[in-house]
Amino acid sequence: MIELLLVGIGTGNPEHLTLQAIRALNSADLILIPRKGPDKDDLAGLRRAICAEVVTNPAVTLAEFDLPVRDETIADYRRRVDHWHDAIARVWAGTIAAHPGARRAALLVWGDPSLYDSTLRIAARLSPAPKITVIPGITSLQALTAAHAIPVNEIGAPFTVTTGRRLRDEGFPPGVDTCAVMLDGECSFRALPMEGLHIWWGAYVGMTEQITLSGPLPGVAAKIVETRAEARARHGWIMDIYILRRGT
Amino acid sequence: MIELLLVGIGTGNPEHLTLQAIRALNSADLILIPRKGPDKDDLAGLRRAICAEVVTNPAVTLAEFDLPVRDETIADYRRRVDHWHDAIARVWAGTIAAHPGARRAALLVWGDPSLYDSTLRIAARLSPAPKITVIPGITSLQALTAAHAIPVNEIGAPFTVTTGRRLRDEGFPPGVDTCAVMLDGECSFRALPMEGLHIWWGAYVGMTEQITLSGPLPGVAAKIVETRAEARARHGWIMDIYILRRGT
Ligand SMILES: C[S@@+](CC[C@H](N)C(=O)[O-])C[C@H]1O[C@@H](n2cnc3c(N)ncnc32)[C@H](O)[C@@H]1O
Ligand SMILES: C[S@@+](CC[C@H](N)C(=O)[O-])C[C@H]1O[C@@H](n2cnc3c(N)ncnc32)[C@H](O)[C@@H]1O
Repeated sequence: MIELLLVGIGTGNPEHLTLQAIRALNSADLILIPRKGPDKDDLAGLRRAICAEVVTNPAVTLAEFDLPVRDETIADYRRRVDHWHDAIARVWAGTIAAHPGARRAALLVWGDPSLYDSTLRIAARLSPAPKITVIPGITSLQALTAAHAIPVNEIGAPFTVTTGRRLRDEGFPPGVDTCAVMLDGECSFRALPMEGLHIWWGAYVGMTEQITLSGPLPGVAAKIVETRAEARARHGWIMDIYILRRGT
Repeated sequence: MIELLLVGIGTGNPEHLTLQAIRALNSADLILIPRKGPDKDDLAGLRRAICAEVVTNPAVTLAEFDLPVRDETIADYRRRVDHWHDAIARVWAGTIAAHPGARRAALLVWGDPSLYDSTLRIAARLSPAPKITVIPGITSLQALTAAHAIPVNEIGAPFTVTTGRRLRDEGFPPGVDTCAVMLDGECSFRALPMEGLHIWWGAYVGMTEQITLSGPLPGVAAKIVETRAEARARHGWIMDIYILRRGT
């Protein structure tokens, strides 16, 4: 049986790597590196740089592979993603098979493998099923709270983590005063009644490009929208995340 | 101005430490180590072991201090905690003042400083206000999902993080199908209608003592209660965490 190591690498600061991640990468026969990320960003370069920096075991082979592209002719979203994930699993399997001695293959996963990431779901499509080992990594949510030096929760209180789409379509989540929003391509906080909300926003958190803004949402929303658009134009890509809190 | 480094250390596996955490600890003039944790566990020993392992800069001084105890004569819970946090802040300030050359003091924070942790709130009581730098660390929630090799969210779906008390008093959180439960001293999942819920439970996650159990809640609840009680008796302390998911 093959073992697949899914190694969380944090959110762009190479120093987010844990000792466990470094040990795991050095224990692999093979590290699979996608030649280009699914987003048009320079994250593939970061993965390579991380390996160059921390992989000291000469027995480890780096194997680059081309990520298949989504078949946009498949109309149904779920079917399109399923089809794409199948294709990625096949490419992984093919890349591993091209190195017959390899028993342990590692993948570098952005942030933490548990959080809005499809690597575990793609890995579940491999057959025969590999042994899956997950190495946790710093998430963008933690990089955000660290950048602002804030707790994510109020004392003893719950919080919800959600997506930009849910926030836009369903409003502020019920039953909580705090929510963290990820995967938001369009500043969905604009769809909310802003009064009484505070926002802590960050783009490229943990990276040298990091930008943070915070304040009462009605006062700072326009500034975030503008800053985001400007940064996105300048870098050619952006990843941002924010926390909203009621009644602060 | 003093700088205070709040360094997330992960959840008991010394290899959860990030390179950033190691660099931060080595950049401190002073590392404040509580002689005994607020819980009757052996976490103080772990903090000391981590420092012995990764602090290589001879210029770093370790300063142990006694954590004040809660004044149980104060009836009101909030006032009692406030009073205690004030006392802790004073002990930190006093310990730092006892090392007149120290400009940068570090504290090792369990898991990540953003998540159900009072260190940031205690730090906010220091006057004059220090510069606060937060170094993120692996949380127990990530150690749990890694141990089970599962994602925390369903695809594109929100999830809520809450406490045992809230779960017991308010039931399964509204608007989500997934919740993660922390700070639960009493297996509060027992208070829920269990039908249709799946649980992924872990105690001592990330540590050598790690125990995990999972399955449909009606089938596995009793086993978790029993395992928890037995482990707690054996080790003298326990920390556990779980994820509940509807409809799986
Ligand atoms: C596909 S999810 C992956 C999340 C990742 N697994 C994690 O643990 O953070 C991508 C989303 O994470 C957030 N994100 C990831 N890295 C980020 C960064 N460096 N700065 C800001 N947001 C980031 C953004 O909300 C982005 O839309
Ligand atoms: C005061 S909170 C601190 C959480 C911490 N800041 C974090 O990031 O995980 C303590 C709670 O975290 C959870 N926890 C912390 N470490 C744990 C571990 N190693 N195994 C299981 N649960 C843990 C338990 O639910 C515990 O009641």
